[in-house]
Amino acid sequence: MVTVDLWFSEAQSCGSKLSIKINAQCIYSESDEQEIAIYDTPDFGRILVLDGRLMLTEKDEYIYHEMIVHPAMAVHPAVENVLIIGGGDGGALRELCRYDSIKSIEVAEIDEEVIKACQEWFPDIACSFDDPRVKVSIGDGLKYVRQKEDEYDLIIVDSTDPFGPGESLFTKEFYGNCYKALKADGILINQHESPFFVNDAAEVSMTHRKLKAVFPIALLYQAHIPTYPSGHWLFGFSSKTLHPLDDHKPEAWAQNNITCRYYNNKLHRGSFALPNYVLDLLSSDYEI
Amino acid sequence: MVTVDLWFSEAQSCGSKLSIKINAQCIYSESDEQEIAIYDTPDFGRILVLDGRLMLTEKDEYIYHEMIVHPAMAVHPAVENVLIIGGGDGGALRELCRYDSIKSIEVAEIDEEVIKACQEWFPDIACSFDDPRVKVSIGDGLKYVRQKEDEYDLIIVDSTDPFGPGESLFTKEFYGNCYKALKADGILINQHESPFFVNDAAEVSMTHRKLKAVFPIALLYQAHIPTYPSGHWLFGFSSKTLHPLDDHKPEAWAQNNITCRYYNNKLHRGSFALPNYVLDLLSSDYEI
Repeated sequence: MVTVDLWFSEAQSCGSKLSIKINAQCIYSESDEQEIAIYDTPDFGRILVLDGRLMLTEKDEYIYHEMIVHPAMAVHPAVENVLIIGGGDGGALRELCRYDSIKSIEVAEIDEEVIKACQEWFPDIACSFDDPRVKVSIGDGLKYVRQKEDEYDLIIVDSTDPFGPGESLFTKEFYGNCYKALKADGILINQHESPFFVNDAAEVSMTHRKLKAVFPIALLYQAHIPTYPSGHWLFGFSSKTLHPLDDHKPEAWAQNNITCRYYNNKLHRGSFALPNYVLDLLSSDYEI
Repeated sequence: MVTVDLWFSEAQSCGSKLSIKINAQCIYSESDEQEIAIYDTPDFGRILVLDGRLMLTEKDEYIYHEMIVHPAMAVHPAVENVLIIGGGDGGALRELCRYDSIKSIEVAEIDEEVIKACQEWFPDIACSFDDPRVKVSIGDGLKYVRQKEDEYDLIIVDSTDPFGPGESLFTKEFYGNCYKALKADGILINQHESPFFVNDAAEVSMTHRKLKAVFPIALLYQAHIPTYPSGHWLFGFSSKTLHPLDDHKPEAWAQNNITCRYYNNKLHRGSFALPNYVLDLLSSDYEI
């Protein structure tokens, strides 16, 4: 029973913050890229904080990681080669490794220290780095993808926010390189920030505009992620040919026998139905 | 420019809280029922706090109030008589008054002081109490509805949480009285709490069980409401005959020419697609 009154707080906007009670600090370190902190909490299990921003909690990480992986897997008929940019916590990797059909998963993470810290403190999340299909490259995701052409069925951009180490992963150049690195029916999924607070909403608009300039299909879907700012989180679904609803294949996906805690076939379709105020942030011809 | 560092905080669970920066207190009073506080804030406009619980903010109230009204109105072909239980802030009333087809709206609110405070401090929300179709009764909602039989097309339970003044509005007796008060094709909409934190989740299960014991159709839908605990909020759609998706009438609803900031026809359907962890809180035969 911890009696000390210790709280972690994250500003969600200038005038609001979410605070989480802390039992103890697990680690605090400074890598070449960022501050890495992990805390143990009574209500959320362990939490990962990079440069002061809450990246994941054990209590709700499954929502983000299921939603960044399974929608694309239920649309593309035969994903074999996947690239994750970022994702050093291993959560997206864990979800991908549940598919026997996937042959190769490359992880391009800029900060090796994040992987090591998560392997030590989040063994249920960073549990798949030893899978024989996985190859980890430490370095800048922008440079990594620049060298690739026609290689991947699926690219997942599981980045931090559009400042600090994650900044280059929100540029039009980067999305253009992802397009080139994808095969003819490839899909790009990216974490697309939150639409609610005004600064975040501006990022949503800019990111959408850049993706739309590169991909014929550039759509968004949403999830309830309680520990992210506003709890309303967006993902981008960009693709060369496949449409997330017209090409949704729930029966084929069911063959994988993957049970989720958040994602299901009906929610797949529902998650693309955005509120009007979010549609207002997107291109005037946006249509799902 | 306010320089004093004043914050309102609400516990979302024992070990988490949302805090909102305050410019100034507008009012603080104690009515016979509860503490009523209204604050002015830089990021959320004015906010209403009852017994220490955040009830609404000017920034996101439209999400809750649109979602507690319009889904039912897009399913029932001819709503004429409506009862709101609670709803003293006037937000649900404002949305209902946008329908020319509605002939009568009764508001049974336990605390007249809430109505008066909202009329003074939230003129854009409590703007419809003077509509000639509206009749306000101050008193216990449970007692009010007990006297009614076969009167309403729609009952909206816009209550506080299941403790304090709102407690009797989460009982099976109350839902049974609502059933009796509804016409043969009547719909009951209630705020159904949040599924995320463990205590709230238990309330979701209990409330669902009670509604299901009374109504042949007892379903739930969800919305992203950033300033409510976890940001993931549920509403109950209970009815004698009408199904929220099978009887959804988007073309008929469009005839009302009502523009929303959150709700739209696609979101109507999407909002009923619940995550697996929420389905796990509901009856084993739950099916949408």
